[in-house]
Amino acid sequence: MDNKFPGKDVTISDLKEKFPLAAKKNKNHQSKIDICGHVFGGKKIPIFAGPNMVESKELIFDVAKNIKKIGSSFMRGGAFKPLTFPYRSKKFNETREKGIEWLMQAKEKFKIPIITEVMETKFLPLVTEVTDIIQIGSRNMQNYPFLVDCAQTGMPIMLKRHYGSSIRDWLGAAEYILKEGNKNVLLCERGVVVPHTHRNTSRFLLDLQVIPAAKELTHLPIISDPSHATFWSPWVKSMTLASIAAGADGIMLEVHPNPRESAVDPLQPISYGEFKRLREEMKKVAKAIGRVI
Amino acid sequence: MDNKFPGKDVTISDLKEKFPLAAKKNKNHQSKIDICGHVFGGKKIPIFAGPNMVESKELIFDVAKNIKKIGSSFMRGGAFKPLTFPYRSKKFNETREKGIEWLMQAKEKFKIPIITEVMETKFLPLVTEVTDIIQIGSRNMQNYPFLVDCAQTGMPIMLKRHYGSSIRDWLGAAEYILKEGNKNVLLCERGVVVPHTHRNTSRFLLDLQVIPAAKELTHLPIISDPSHATFWSPWVKSMTLASIAAGADGIMLEVHPNPRESAVDPLQPISYGEFKRLREEMKKVAKAIGRVI
Amino acid sequence: MDNKFPGKDVTISDLKEKFPLAAKKNKNHQSKIDICGHVFGGKKIPIFAGPNMVESKELIFDVAKNIKKIGSSFMRGGAFKPLTFPYRSKKFNETREKGIEWLMQAKEKFKIPIITEVMETKFLPLVTEVTDIIQIGSRNMQNYPFLVDCAQTGMPIMLKRHYGSSIRDWLGAAEYILKEGNKNVLLCERGVVVPHTHRNTSRFLLDLQVIPAAKELTHLPIISDPSHATFWSPWVKSMTLASIAAGADGIMLEVHPNPRESAVDPLQPISYGEFKRLREEMKKVAKAIGRVI
Amino acid sequence: MDNKFPGKDVTISDLKEKFPLAAKKNKNHQSKIDICGHVFGGKKIPIFAGPNMVESKELIFDVAKNIKKIGSSFMRGGAFKPLTFPYRSKKFNETREKGIEWLMQAKEKFKIPIITEVMETKFLPLVTEVTDIIQIGSRNMQNYPFLVDCAQTGMPIMLKRHYGSSIRDWLGAAEYILKEGNKNVLLCERGVVVPHTHRNTSRFLLDLQVIPAAKELTHLPIISDPSHATFWSPWVKSMTLASIAAGADGIMLEVHPNPRESAVDPLQPISYGEFKRLREEMKKVAKAIGRVI
Repeated sequence: MDNKFPGKDVTISDLKEKFPLAAKKNKNHQSKIDICGHVFGGKKIPIFAGPNMVESKELIFDVAKNIKKIGSSFMRGGAFKPLTFPYRSKKFNETREKGIEWLMQAKEKFKIPIITEVMETKFLPLVTEVTDIIQIGSRNMQNYPFLVDCAQTGMPIMLKRHYGSSIRDWLGAAEYILKEGNKNVLLCERGVVVPHTHRNTSRFLLDLQVIPAAKELTHLPIISDPSHATFWSPWVKSMTLASIAAGADGIMLEVHPNPRESAVDPLQPISYGEFKRLREEMKKVAKAIGRVI
Repeated sequence: MDNKFPGKDVTISDLKEKFPLAAKKNKNHQSKIDICGHVFGGKKIPIFAGPNMVESKELIFDVAKNIKKIGSSFMRGGAFKPLTFPYRSKKFNETREKGIEWLMQAKEKFKIPIITEVMETKFLPLVTEVTDIIQIGSRNMQNYPFLVDCAQTGMPIMLKRHYGSSIRDWLGAAEYILKEGNKNVLLCERGVVVPHTHRNTSRFLLDLQVIPAAKELTHLPIISDPSHATFWSPWVKSMTLASIAAGADGIMLEVHPNPRESAVDPLQPISYGEFKRLREEMKKVAKAIGRVI
Repeated sequence: MDNKFPGKDVTISDLKEKFPLAAKKNKNHQSKIDICGHVFGGKKIPIFAGPNMVESKELIFDVAKNIKKIGSSFMRGGAFKPLTFPYRSKKFNETREKGIEWLMQAKEKFKIPIITEVMETKFLPLVTEVTDIIQIGSRNMQNYPFLVDCAQTGMPIMLKRHYGSSIRDWLGAAEYILKEGNKNVLLCERGVVVPHTHRNTSRFLLDLQVIPAAKELTHLPIISDPSHATFWSPWVKSMTLASIAAGADGIMLEVHPNPRESAVDPLQPISYGEFKRLREEMKKVAKAIGRVI
Repeated sequence: MDNKFPGKDVTISDLKEKFPLAAKKNKNHQSKIDICGHVFGGKKIPIFAGPNMVESKELIFDVAKNIKKIGSSFMRGGAFKPLTFPYRSKKFNETREKGIEWLMQAKEKFKIPIITEVMETKFLPLVTEVTDIIQIGSRNMQNYPFLVDCAQTGMPIMLKRHYGSSIRDWLGAAEYILKEGNKNVLLCERGVVVPHTHRNTSRFLLDLQVIPAAKELTHLPIISDPSHATFWSPWVKSMTLASIAAGADGIMLEVHPNPRESAVDPLQPISYGEFKRLREEMKKVAKAIGRVI
C-alpha cells in the first residue's frame, strides 16, 4: 500500500538503486569467478569439503589428503568459529593461530586450496595468508564495516546468507563488497529459520527456492551448504543432489573422518566413504543438467 | 524439558502410539502403491499435469490430449476449489458438476487417469465416479471427519500437507486415513509458510528437506508440487528437478495452454512447450539417481 | 513487481473486492455484537473460560459454578475436538453427544451462556441447541463449505485464525460467513507458527500485532486466546494482560480445576484460583485503557 | 530424539553450562540495574525516546528538549547505523563523528542521558564518551568479538535480539558480556521474522511472548522496542501498552518532530504529541500492573 516505502521484497527500483553491482544487467548475465583455477558460475560445480573446525594438525592433514583424493576442489575448516556460548571445553575450542598454521602446512603439503572463516578485521592479515577465499559467516553477514574490510583485501569472498535474512538484505550485503571494487563474491545459502525443521536438533531449513530466486536478480554464483542447513547427516545426500538440480554453482560439505567425534555439531558431518559415494552421485546429477563436478 | 508432554517434533513413542500405520516398520520399509498401473514408491516417478481449474470442456480436452502425448501419467484439474474469497467472477469460478462431467468425457476420450480435489463429503459420490485419486487439499488436511469419509470410499488418496503444519501433524492426518483400512495414501508437499519467500506474489516455500525427513519416518510415497509452492512459473523447472533429486516419488505440475490466461493463479502454470522440455530434463535427473520418469 | 496479481498482503482493492463486508467502511467503523447480553466490540471485554474438553458431567458442573462465580461471561469447553491423531484412550477422548448433553444441563442449572466447537455440518443441529456461539476452530478456518453451513444457522460465530494463515486469508474466511447475511462474527487470534516459540512444548506464538493490524482493516471484534497460543500456563497471565492492552475485544481462557489432570494439553490451563486473581488484574488493565471487564 | 545433542530450545543443562551468569539462580532472581539514576528491573519502567538517526544538530536539540519535557528517561538516536545498502543520499546518511558531537552538546544542554548504537570496536572510545548505554544492534548480536570489546568498556549495554535468533542464542550472546565481568546488561526485543507481518512494509512481528519466556530463564531486564518491530506508527501505541502489560522493564520508542520526514524508516516514528498522549496511557497501564513510568 505504500509503494514508495521500502518493503520486504525486492522491487524493480532496488535493482538500479540499492544493489546495481549485484543486479544482473540482462537475462543472461552470469559472473564466472576463477579461484585457484576453479571457476564458479560456469559449467563446473566446485566442492568445498572438510571439518567444521580445524581441530588438530593430525585431523587436518588426514582430511586434506583424503578429500583431495576423493575430488574436493577446496578444503574448508574453521580455526576461528562464532560459537553460541563463551565457554570452551578442551574438546570444543577454536584453535585460532595454531589452526591457521596447520591449514598452511596442509595446504602446502597436499596442494589443496583453502576456504576458512574470519570474524574480525584484526585477523584478516593472518587468515588471508592461508585462505584462498574469505568465508564470511551467517552471523557476520550484516557486519557492514567488516564486509568492507574484507572486500579491501582484494581476496575472493564467500558471503553466507544470514539465517533470518531476506534475499534483499543478502544482496545489499554483497553490494557493500562489490562497491569496494572486489568482484569476486560468492553467495552461500546455508539454511534459514522457519516454523518447522522436522527434528528437534535441526534448527534450519535449506532454502533451495532461493537459488532460482537469486538467479533472477543477480549474476553472482550461488553456493549451497546442505550440512549446516540440515544439521543431520542422513539428509545431506538428498539435499546436496537437490542443490545441484536446483542450480547451485558450488557445494559446501562437512566431512570428518569420524563424524560423531567432531568437535562441534557431530550430527552433521559425513564420513570419507559417504563423501566418496556422494561425489559419484553428484557427478551424475550434474551431468543430467548439463554441468560437471 | 517436559518430555512426557507432546512437543513440536516427532518422538520415538509417536512412531508406535500416534501413527503406527504411517510409521516405517524398518529402515527399508517403503510402500508401493499401484494406481491405474502407475506405481508410486518404486523406481518410477509418475507425473500429474494439468490446469489449476477445469475451466471449460475445450480447455480440458486440449490439455488431456497434449499432456498425454508429452507423457503425463495423470491429468490434474479442479472442478471444486477452495477459494480464499467468496466472490466469483465469470472467469474466476468453479465449474463443479459440469467440470466433473468434462473430466469424465476427457478421461474416456483420451484414456488418461484423473486426480481431482473434493472438499465435501456430499460430493464424494460424484467425484469418485471420475477421479482415480482423491486429492485432499492443504486447507482440508486437518478436517478429520472428512478424511475418514474419504478413506471409507476405498479410493487412493493424495493428502496435501497444510502450509502451516509440522510433519507430525501431517502423519497424524495420514493415520486417520490408514486407520480406516485404506492403505493407498500419497503424501504431497506443496509449500509452507516461512519468513521469506523471495517475491511479493509468492506465498510459500517448497520444503524439500521434508522429503528426506518424511522418508526417515514413513513408508508412504511423497509427491512434490512445485507449481503451488513457488507460485511463479520461472522457478518451477529448477524446483521440479530438485524435487526429483531430493527423492520425490511423484511430481504434480500445473500446465496450461496459455498460462497467463489461467482462471486462477496465472503466474504459476507452465505451457505445453515448457512441460515437454521439462519432462526431458526430469528424465535425465531421474536416471542420474537410478529412477525413471 | 506484479501489482495486478494477488500477493501476500492486503491491498486497497481487496477491501472493496475481496472482503467488502468484513472491511471497515470508515476509520471509526466498529461492529458491536450482542450475544446473550454481552456486547463484543464495545467498552466491555467479555471472558470465555472453561476446560479444553467437556470431560465429564462432574467437571463441567464444577467449572460452570466456579467460573460464573469468578465472573466469566461464557463457559467454553469442547465435546467435539479436532485431535491430531486418531487413537483415543479412555482419558483422552471426545465426549460428543454426551458432552453436549452435559453442557446443556450445566447451562440450565448455572445460567451461563456457552461457546463450543463444532466440526461437521451434520452436528450443527445438535450443537446449536446448546451453544450460544458456534466456535470454528483453527483447523476448519478454510473449510469454506462448512463456514457457509455454520453461517446459515444464523447463530453468532467465532472464527479462529488458522495458525498458518495471513490476515488476508482470515478476513476472506470471515467474508464467507458475512456474505450469507450472518453479521455476528467474532475473530479469534490463537497463536501462529513462527521460527521460535521459546519452549519445546510450545508450538505457537500469540500474534498480538495482528490486533491493531486487523483493527485497521475490519470492523469485526477480535478475541485473543492466550491459553492455546502459549501452550504453557505460566505465560498466560502476562499474555492475557498484553492482549487487553493491545485492544482485544474478548479473552478466551482455559480454566480447569486440576490443570495438570486436564484430558488434553495439561500444560496450558490455569486453576480457579489463578483465574480469579487474573480477572482482578484484567479489570485493572482494562480500566487503564478505558474499558471494563 | 537426541537429547545429548544441542537443539533449538533451552534445556535445563543450558542454564548451568551454557549461560550460568545470565540464568536465574532462583524463581525470584531479578537484576536491578541503575543507569544514571534510572533503575531497570524494578518497579519503574524507563523510556528511551528519540529519532532513528541523529540527522542534524537542530533536530537532536529539538528532540532532547521536547522528550525530556514529556518525560523520557533517556534520549536515543543513532550517529552510526547499520544500513542495508551501501549507497547514501544527502538525506539518508549517517552523521557519525558529527552526530556524536551533537549528542554530546544536547546531553550537556538538556541534561538527558543518552543511548546510542556503536558498530565497531574502533569507535568505542568515541561513542562511550557520550553514551550512557552502549546499544548493540540486532545485526551485531552474534558478533562475539565485538560483544567482548563492548563488555570490557565497563559501560552498561543494551543487547538487541537478532530478528532471527532464538532465546537460547540471545542468552548465549548476553553470557559473552557477563563473562567479562560486566553485569549491566539489558536485553531488548525488537521484532522477529515470521511468515505473516500484516503489511507489505512491515518486516517483523513484535514477539511479546518472549518476555514471560525470558523472565522464566534470566534475571536480566527486558526492554521492548515496538517502533522497530512494527515499522508502522499506527500500531506503536497498542504494542507499547501490550509490552508493559506483558512485563517489559523498559520501552524504546522512535519519536520525531515530523515523522514522515524522518531520514530513515519514516513510517515508524511517532510525533511529540503522540508520544505525550502515549506516555499518559503508559502510566495508567503501568499502574494497573503495580509499576510506574
